[in-house]
Amino acid sequence: MEWEDLAKELSQATDSKIVLLVLDGVGGLPVDGRSELEAARKPNLDGLAKRAVCGLSDPVFMGITPGSGPAHLALFGYDPLKYQLGRGILEALGSGVEVGRNDLVARGNFATLRAGLISDRRAGRIPTGENVRICGFLNERLPKRDGVEVKVFPGKEHRFVARFTAEGLSDELTDADPQKEGRPRLPANPVVPGAAKAAAVVNRFLDDLTDVLRTEPKANTALLRGFSKFPSIPTMPELFNLRPAAIANYPMYKGLAKLLGMTVLDVGSEASELFDALEKNYKDHDFFYVHYKKTDSAGEDGKFEAKVAAIEALDTFIPRLTALNPDVLVVTSDHSTPALLCGHSWHPNPFLLVSRTAGVDDVAAFTERACAKGMLGRFRALYAMPLMLAHALKLKKYGA
Amino acid sequence: MEWEDLAKELSQATDSKIVLLVLDGVGGLPVDGRSELEAARKPNLDGLAKRAVCGLSDPVFMGITPGSGPAHLALFGYDPLKYQLGRGILEALGSGVEVGRNDLVARGNFATLRAGLISDRRAGRIPTGENVRICGFLNERLPKRDGVEVKVFPGKEHRFVARFTAEGLSDELTDADPQKEGRPRLPANPVVPGAAKAAAVVNRFLDDLTDVLRTEPKANTALLRGFSKFPSIPTMPELFNLRPAAIANYPMYKGLAKLLGMTVLDVGSEASELFDALEKNYKDHDFFYVHYKKTDSAGEDGKFEAKVAAIEALDTFIPRLTALNPDVLVVTSDHSTPALLCGHSWHPNPFLLVSRTAGVDDVAAFTERACAKGMLGRFRALYAMPLMLAHALKLKKYGA
Repeated sequence: MEWEDLAKELSQATDSKIVLLVLDGVGGLPVDGRSELEAARKPNLDGLAKRAVCGLSDPVFMGITPGSGPAHLALFGYDPLKYQLGRGILEALGSGVEVGRNDLVARGNFATLRAGLISDRRAGRIPTGENVRICGFLNERLPKRDGVEVKVFPGKEHRFVARFTAEGLSDELTDADPQKEGRPRLPANPVVPGAAKAAAVVNRFLDDLTDVLRTEPKANTALLRGFSKFPSIPTMPELFNLRPAAIANYPMYKGLAKLLGMTVLDVGSEASELFDALEKNYKDHDFFYVHYKKTDSAGEDGKFEAKVAAIEALDTFIPRLTALNPDVLVVTSDHSTPALLCGHSWHPNPFLLVSRTAGVDDVAAFTERACAKGMLGRFRALYAMPLMLAHALKLKKYGA
Repeated sequence: MEWEDLAKELSQATDSKIVLLVLDGVGGLPVDGRSELEAARKPNLDGLAKRAVCGLSDPVFMGITPGSGPAHLALFGYDPLKYQLGRGILEALGSGVEVGRNDLVARGNFATLRAGLISDRRAGRIPTGENVRICGFLNERLPKRDGVEVKVFPGKEHRFVARFTAEGLSDELTDADPQKEGRPRLPANPVVPGAAKAAAVVNRFLDDLTDVLRTEPKANTALLRGFSKFPSIPTMPELFNLRPAAIANYPMYKGLAKLLGMTVLDVGSEASELFDALEKNYKDHDFFYVHYKKTDSAGEDGKFEAKVAAIEALDTFIPRLTALNPDVLVVTSDHSTPALLCGHSWHPNPFLLVSRTAGVDDVAAFTERACAKGMLGRFRALYAMPLMLAHALKLKKYGA
């Protein structure tokens, strides 16, 4: 019996509230002896640690650096080695594109073709308005072929999502992207024989698109990556008997949340808006995923001081969170993003849990080194969900 | 290769002695800042912790609250997610009902039938004496059918165990219980084709019983739940090459021990009797499971002070245990039962291990928070058995 089966059998709806605050990429590495969390002045987060049990969690297992998809899946109680979500589906869902069971989606870049070679993989980062115009034009002019419906959806700058609707379109395709400039266009290739139809559909679409856009000065072709079907994944209401809400600004996190059956509450990019939405919707849900992005962005950019500042900025909002007095409050991250590495890393996430049923350990600061001495020890992030459900008294006893 | 295969391959009989002292439900939660173990004066247990390596163990995994069955299975080296013991078999074994390989057992309720509908699923909670009389009457009067032997065993109030003995009786049956009052009797239905015979046997028994009891004022029919066969589970002698003994007073623990091939040594309900039995039988076995129940009972009742007293009472016997100088001594629990929660919980168990080959860590008290800092870290209780066997030098090297 696996955790998911157990979850279905044991979880029960109750009125108790769980808040999972994800400080994206917050875990870091020392620079001049102190990590970002150690350098930040964050009295409220440290105050939470003093009232909490703490630990370190591994998104997948030791040494594995996860993308945002697997890292979040683990936090939401899904084994990231069992469910693999294509980047295309996450981008599509995050952009508000409806995706159904017969849809194949991919992330697109408008690009520039000169003398048969890709001279700019991002079409000079055309303005978003241009992108909207071009997508409208394409949706009007692209020829219909063999009953396959194709639609493109504009994103920011040069980015778009392509959606192909037909029976039997496999997503087992290689990217239609030469990866480097100065190379010719590259078709999508089927990875399995059953994907031949999808490859033909996709490649004809790219040819048609390049033909329709031949007079555009910059965006005169496109690249497609991350072909994905709608994944077969049970929702959080099905698995955990939750009425979950996601409070997030970035498309990918909203898309993933929607996929898992969360209600996505729209918020802007300011931290204050996360807490506005939490307060406003607090009575309507029993699980809140609150996503703070700035820690990760700063880490990705290698900006140690900016990451420290992002932590300090977030810290000032913690009193609004504790004022709600949720039955279970967890602060952690999906993965670490040390400024030192300018990207995601395999380091475990500091984790704190406050609950009436959790007790308190000796950890007095929300940092990597302090949490390593916490009572929760080191554990797979997959177990965060059973732990949260248990402390919310939402899990019945297993066996007699 | 799984642990069980490894165990069979690597375990060897030796003269070394292992004592596993289970303080049932001993783990707790702070009330006024201190848990039951932190509040108790227990110099002997703390003295053991000072000579031990310590840790915290999860019976199943983080967040899962186990029943006594799965929690004990894990401690005995059996994956509790692999072996699921039906409530019927545990109830039967716990009630002292002998169960063999050809037996099908179920938990029964006497119930009241009025005008074709179940008007009381518990027959007005008839006194246990009534139950004993009715079971005796049934065992005398129930007709024998087609060579199937049926016997009922009284429990408390309206509860009983039914045992059906014949070849080929499957336990893949739905409960013969409408679940709610005001509904007609419900037959057991086969879940698989091979269970048709068992369903026929069970349903004819229920008809016969209802006929024999037709003049009873309250207990004039019965419901049956949790059909179970004798589970197919390897014994501890088979898996671990042990000659194990169980020293326990409560039926369920004795039943489980018997199922796993332990010799059950009868003891009364006093703590002193556990240690009398241990001393008396010490030379005859190499593994002793000693079960102390009072910590759990007090926790279940929500009686913090009574649980503290139960810990303190047990502590006085530890010198009799250490006087035997076992090669491996473990003190832990099957699951936690915080008085704060009045029931089993998902919190990990404090764990200490004393052995010549274990070394000593810095932990100076047998408490949840102290053990969290021990050298064993946090681990699944399933690994307690390989650890005990290893320290007893009963496990050979794996691989060359």
